[in-house]
Amino acid sequence: MPSSLFDRHRARLEEARAACRDRRCWSPFPEMPSGRIYGETAAEEGRQAFEARLGKPFELDQPTSGERLGNEHSPYGFPLGITYPAPDIPAMLRSAKSAMGAWRDAGIEGRVGVCMEVLDRLNRRSFELAHAVMHTTGQGFVMAFQAGGPHAQDRGLEAVALAYEAMTRIPPRAVWEKPVGKGRTARFEKIYTAVPRGLALVIGCSTFPTWNSYPGLFASLACGNPVIVKPHPRAVLPLAITVETVREVLREQGFSADLVQLAVDSAGAPITTALATRPEIRLIDYTGSSAFGDWLEAHARQAQLFTEKAGVNPVIIDSTDDFAGMTRNLAFSLCLYSGQMCTTPQNLFVPAGGIATDEGRKSFDEVAQGILGAIDGLLADPERAAEVLGCIQNPDTLERIDRVAAAAGDAVLRASTPLAHPRFEKACLRSPLVVHAESGEEDLYMREWFGPISFLVEADSTLDAIERAARGARERGAITAAVYSTDEEVLAATAAAMLEAGVALSENLTGGVYVNQSAAFSDFHVSGANPAGNATLTDDAFVAPRFRFVQRRRPLAG
Amino acid sequence: MPSSLFDRHRARLEEARAACRDRRCWSPFPEMPSGRIYGETAAEEGRQAFEARLGKPFELDQPTSGERLGNEHSPYGFPLGITYPAPDIPAMLRSAKSAMGAWRDAGIEGRVGVCMEVLDRLNRRSFELAHAVMHTTGQGFVMAFQAGGPHAQDRGLEAVALAYEAMTRIPPRAVWEKPVGKGRTARFEKIYTAVPRGLALVIGCSTFPTWNSYPGLFASLACGNPVIVKPHPRAVLPLAITVETVREVLREQGFSADLVQLAVDSAGAPITTALATRPEIRLIDYTGSSAFGDWLEAHARQAQLFTEKAGVNPVIIDSTDDFAGMTRNLAFSLCLYSGQMCTTPQNLFVPAGGIATDEGRKSFDEVAQGILGAIDGLLADPERAAEVLGCIQNPDTLERIDRVAAAAGDAVLRASTPLAHPRFEKACLRSPLVVHAESGEEDLYMREWFGPISFLVEADSTLDAIERAARGARERGAITAAVYSTDEEVLAATAAAMLEAGVALSENLTGGVYVNQSAAFSDFHVSGANPAGNATLTDDAFVAPRFRFVQRRRPLAG
Repeated sequence: MPSSLFDRHRARLEEARAACRDRRCWSPFPEMPSGRIYGETAAEEGRQAFEARLGKPFELDQPTSGERLGNEHSPYGFPLGITYPAPDIPAMLRSAKSAMGAWRDAGIEGRVGVCMEVLDRLNRRSFELAHAVMHTTGQGFVMAFQAGGPHAQDRGLEAVALAYEAMTRIPPRAVWEKPVGKGRTARFEKIYTAVPRGLALVIGCSTFPTWNSYPGLFASLACGNPVIVKPHPRAVLPLAITVETVREVLREQGFSADLVQLAVDSAGAPITTALATRPEIRLIDYTGSSAFGDWLEAHARQAQLFTEKAGVNPVIIDSTDDFAGMTRNLAFSLCLYSGQMCTTPQNLFVPAGGIATDEGRKSFDEVAQGILGAIDGLLADPERAAEVLGCIQNPDTLERIDRVAAAAGDAVLRASTPLAHPRFEKACLRSPLVVHAESGEEDLYMREWFGPISFLVEADSTLDAIERAARGARERGAITAAVYSTDEEVLAATAAAMLEAGVALSENLTGGVYVNQSAAFSDFHVSGANPAGNATLTDDAFVAPRFRFVQRRRPLAG
Repeated sequence: MPSSLFDRHRARLEEARAACRDRRCWSPFPEMPSGRIYGETAAEEGRQAFEARLGKPFELDQPTSGERLGNEHSPYGFPLGITYPAPDIPAMLRSAKSAMGAWRDAGIEGRVGVCMEVLDRLNRRSFELAHAVMHTTGQGFVMAFQAGGPHAQDRGLEAVALAYEAMTRIPPRAVWEKPVGKGRTARFEKIYTAVPRGLALVIGCSTFPTWNSYPGLFASLACGNPVIVKPHPRAVLPLAITVETVREVLREQGFSADLVQLAVDSAGAPITTALATRPEIRLIDYTGSSAFGDWLEAHARQAQLFTEKAGVNPVIIDSTDDFAGMTRNLAFSLCLYSGQMCTTPQNLFVPAGGIATDEGRKSFDEVAQGILGAIDGLLADPERAAEVLGCIQNPDTLERIDRVAAAAGDAVLRASTPLAHPRFEKACLRSPLVVHAESGEEDLYMREWFGPISFLVEADSTLDAIERAARGARERGAITAAVYSTDEEVLAATAAAMLEAGVALSENLTGGVYVNQSAAFSDFHVSGANPAGNATLTDDAFVAPRFRFVQRRRPLAG
């Protein structure tokens, strides 16, 4: 049975494997929320499916204490009212563990076939997932559709393809023949089996519940590990729908649905520290704050840990031959989802002496005005502003904006102001706060300020900008870096510094590609080479430690 | 320059890559210490090179405190009298770190070329290395030649081949083209660079200083990481010769020799705990006791750690169609290097009711007598006994033999007795201690007793034997397991249990292949799937975390 799923999805898997090797632009999951692609009724059905969830218990037939938990509130201004079964952790771990043997014995194709089918079904639920992501994270609808649906599915598929590659790199059987003297040969059959590492825990984040969880979830599952998904209490629904979908396919294929379980908790009674340090948990994928990531690295010693934490993302502005394109591109990067992306730039370094542009030399202040003007332009249309900004997901972010603004005083270049949403009256929309910083004020800008908070840092020179940007990345971590320059030497020096700091660099983005964006099959997300995280989406190091080859050798007749 | 080394060794690298994929029997380094292969003068030159080292300072031009350390004593009964430069650790770390950029920039082929050349030169020094290994570990000469020379070189080459595979799986450059609407295409060049993780530490063991160190040393070096080699104070010379060889090639190729440095310490003033927890150390390869391996896992949090620790290796004896072959094979496994191998069987489970054999049914006692008789036969010729047993490397092992013998009392089936070495009067040779154990005496036999100490465990049944063997592996770790049976169902049940326990299983070994042996390019040594270690020699998980891809994306003209 399972291998028929593998056969069904074999062509797509082969394409995904090739794309991982070529790093070309590829996806089987269309990113446009279009009726022509997903079916004319898909959008409406997705909306109805989401609305039918509201105010009701979400049923998952898994070990539970019998209580129900759930306190999600849409950043667009209403409670979701959904409750989930509270986990019975010991029973869940037992059930997961007892399901592991049959899942291992399903073999590589059996497991990969199930994962591929799950991704396909998740894709068909992309509109439902979009609403779930929108109303838990506060993303605008199109972004919620893309990042929460097809792009997350891409990242899941990429992980499955790499896991398949890694597991099949060693043949299941080999013949080993060694001359042992006197014309004789020792002949052995060797059998190599990929065995799972153990139970896996995926700790979801509140801003990208699916995109950041799918790689670990699917990599672990494909490699034979049962997975417990621990969603952020503010963003449960997208992962509940995901777990429901995996369990449905597992059950249809004759496996225990408890190979993937949802462990919901609440902000008041968190379970993550206890769960992450259980001896049964052998793999952990974590996305979230650096503070808790550091705690996991120090305490979850029994597990192989993959972390994506936070960083201080720099932009170096040296010169440009498209000033308007540069400022538009940067404005969009700063506004997109109100800076609530781990890839959003925070520190924009501009030489105090100004820069050369296609519009003539621009002073520091003129560069600042260019960027601020582009932000104003982008947010001028309320409908577009709402779609780009989305909502502030967490009240802590508002508090952080206020704190930085108060500390900056006269240095505020652009205040963060509330905006009205055209349809959701209670939605919390805020425009970006932009602050001027002297290069010496590293205490202020050389730390992460999550949310729509950025600094225009007056650097002594381009070299000073590069040095500070790279040092910030090395010491505080960075997930993205960008540079604008018409000078190949500046580009080369920046590339060398960012290589040393282990940060992905984007050069001269002036069109419709933004530094915040990371495309599966081509871009490595987080490098694992600086404090922003210890893993990459997705390389061999992300999948290979999730299984082991165990071998059996048997003499063959001489 | 470096790439010319790559070209010189390209054909061998391609063969090694193919062998890793096929898992066939392959080696470019002949294992026979034969003049016809290595040159008629090679043996004598190797002996002279070794003897020229004795009683002299070993010169290594690397940062040193100015003091000299060295207290090696041949288990064959004489002091080596060699001293090594005491390390100046802060200066060594600085020097290594400052050499890293140029080594990274040498590129994959540049680094791999150097590693291949080093392995080739080490191979030409195999006789010298054999004497060095023999007179630090106590191995017999032929074993010291094979395990310390060509087989260690094989393991190093295997690591280089897999590191090369992993680093070249992603192209250095790719073009990414995405339609962005209105007939336009965003076109980007993406540049992917493999960057090293950081400084690497290789912690050598006293019994297999080269074989167990080369995989980590060469994997880290090939991936761009400078390496500090911390030898066991009892077995410095083989790694000093190795480091000397690497430094020679590095220097010839224009790199800093301090990319590989030797950090010697003494038993009285060990440096490993301080060194292994330095923030600069980002990779650690460790072979040695479980106690210190566990300490490293708990404390060396800043580093990616690869451990090979110890286990309790079982043999399940259910039935055989070659009783004489089985007992000869087991006797050799127990005697080889006096059980001082992490792969030596410790617990031989035999059903209390006896077993079926080609010589008729044998009672438990008859099986025991068969094995003991085979040991006596193997050791009857003093020359052969000396070559097989080698010497007891560490006085602690003698103490352990005495302790178990005293505890066992009447249960001793075969006492460990001193043997005279035909040439080395002061060599410490001991025959194996074999103890009878009831299956319930798990407190006694279900822990590691390193050295020539084994237990014939009277199991209730074959199933009882399988259960206990597998449980021991799961709970205490195991690196090897063996089974003898003519019954496919027993073989399948054992294979299933050992798969679950994550132990490599050998079936029905009766000829010239022994459970202790692990062949590069084919056998995975240690599974990483039970407490005997967290890593395997050698899979992708062993090499992939040693580097990261850092990317740069640049717009291309539309």
